[in-house]
Amino acid sequence: MRIGFIGLGIMGRGMVGNLLKAGHELIVYNRGTERMQPFVDRGAKAAASPAEVAAGSEITGVCVTDDAAVEAVLSGPEGLLEGLGPDGIVLDHSTISPEQTLRAARAAAERGAEWLDAPVTGGDRGAAAGTLTIMVGGSAAGFRRVQPYLQVIGKTLVHVGGSGKGQLVKLINNFIGGIALAAAAEGLTIGLRGGVPLETLMRVLTAGSADSVSLRLLAERLQSGDDRPGFSLANRLKDMDLALAAARALGACLPVGAVAAEMFRERAAAGEKDLDQTVLVRRYGGPEPGGSW
Amino acid sequence: MRIGFIGLGIMGRGMVGNLLKAGHELIVYNRGTERMQPFVDRGAKAAASPAEVAAGSEITGVCVTDDAAVEAVLSGPEGLLEGLGPDGIVLDHSTISPEQTLRAARAAAERGAEWLDAPVTGGDRGAAAGTLTIMVGGSAAGFRRVQPYLQVIGKTLVHVGGSGKGQLVKLINNFIGGIALAAAAEGLTIGLRGGVPLETLMRVLTAGSADSVSLRLLAERLQSGDDRPGFSLANRLKDMDLALAAARALGACLPVGAVAAEMFRERAAAGEKDLDQTVLVRRYGGPEPGGSW
Repeated sequence: MRIGFIGLGIMGRGMVGNLLKAGHELIVYNRGTERMQPFVDRGAKAAASPAEVAAGSEITGVCVTDDAAVEAVLSGPEGLLEGLGPDGIVLDHSTISPEQTLRAARAAAERGAEWLDAPVTGGDRGAAAGTLTIMVGGSAAGFRRVQPYLQVIGKTLVHVGGSGKGQLVKLINNFIGGIALAAAAEGLTIGLRGGVPLETLMRVLTAGSADSVSLRLLAERLQSGDDRPGFSLANRLKDMDLALAAARALGACLPVGAVAAEMFRERAAAGEKDLDQTVLVRRYGGPEPGGSW
Repeated sequence: MRIGFIGLGIMGRGMVGNLLKAGHELIVYNRGTERMQPFVDRGAKAAASPAEVAAGSEITGVCVTDDAAVEAVLSGPEGLLEGLGPDGIVLDHSTISPEQTLRAARAAAERGAEWLDAPVTGGDRGAAAGTLTIMVGGSAAGFRRVQPYLQVIGKTLVHVGGSGKGQLVKLINNFIGGIALAAAAEGLTIGLRGGVPLETLMRVLTAGSADSVSLRLLAERLQSGDDRPGFSLANRLKDMDLALAAARALGACLPVGAVAAEMFRERAAAGEKDLDQTVLVRRYGGPEPGGSW
């Protein structure tokens, strides 16, 4: 299959690697052109613009940072829309607002093409291993058409509803995970200040009702001391704010999530937005006054 | 071994059942005496008071509701202390404050005996199956002495530190789990209001970074519609408040947990304290205005 891909960040690189490995013909584009070279070396074609990617492929994947980046790829000069033909289909793996997704889907539909929102969870490891969970919003026919592509990059493939619903479910996932990370940070803080070693706490908590993906992630980072972003604090905050905005539009009142978002915002304001999200735990001041993790 | 047990609630009944099955000689006490009969039928001896239990056993288990109930068992008329000999050892499975635990441990020590705090997690199912996680505070020698008892009722047995540390870790477990339950309630509310079915949400979220024990528990209850308490809202609130009090004593500031506790308190004030903790989700008003779960 001729597959296009726009956005070769941490996540996109893993997906493109797997699509190449599966024998697909790839045409890629990245704003910073140096990221294309490793894939050109493996047989992919480098495009000069998003329009060229869309024009040259049956399915076009997109994986960029936020609403503004998707808008730039879509409608900028030589944007994706210019190259999108009447049978084109776009899979957007970015995590963006349901509203921006609806705008993109309408623009694609005007050209006879389809835009599926297909955000993913599973991190850089899942992207590299091809084991991502992918939540797809759009038509059932579109979901069927992209199966040969989805099955290469992911393991759990779920058609969650119409256009924008994939983004909504992704935001919910990251919203719940963000609060759970704050919960883990607050709980571990009590234990460490109370003199119980992290290893002891984790032996009990992972065998107890406190267990969660976020708790294990935080403990792993506390043990390694590694602050480099697997998932940056800025990205977590962005997703929690988008989830809260979606909730407000739906009339839901979510106090615990709102406070958790403010905790991440405080660390962002303190200059830590480009560090890993787990630096949130510093908000709570360490195992004892003045102590270090 | 001659084992005593005080408190035949949901959790205590499971533990005593397993101790009997393992061939131990049991002497039991419960304030409401009708709960003793099924165990008498299985060969246990019914005692007339906590003092009689302690006088007749090598190890005495206690599993009651709160600080006040432990105090009543310990120091009331014909209380446990009166029967506790110099080689006695008490295992307290109640979830209470570290402060009350320290008082009980001092009182036991004055009689030459030892009080181990040994709260559990795993719920009524874990108690019945003998697969509880047990976090023990007290001396290493005491922890070794009670192994024949612990290995019958639990699977993950962890000596977490000195007296009171078992309770501290248990409170942390229930604190983190309580916030995670609020997180799940808020996140699922967004999705249900947004028109995504619960089954679809759970397929994605359990394969994503939102996954947690609390999320699965809440979804199971929403699907069954069962409000009868596995773990009551009043008990969850009690544990979160105890965790927050412990955190304050340690100088930690925990805004997300404080707000989550207020959410549980609101449902308690609305008359739902004796229902299952998962009724918290009603706080958020259902899948759409006026809709039902």
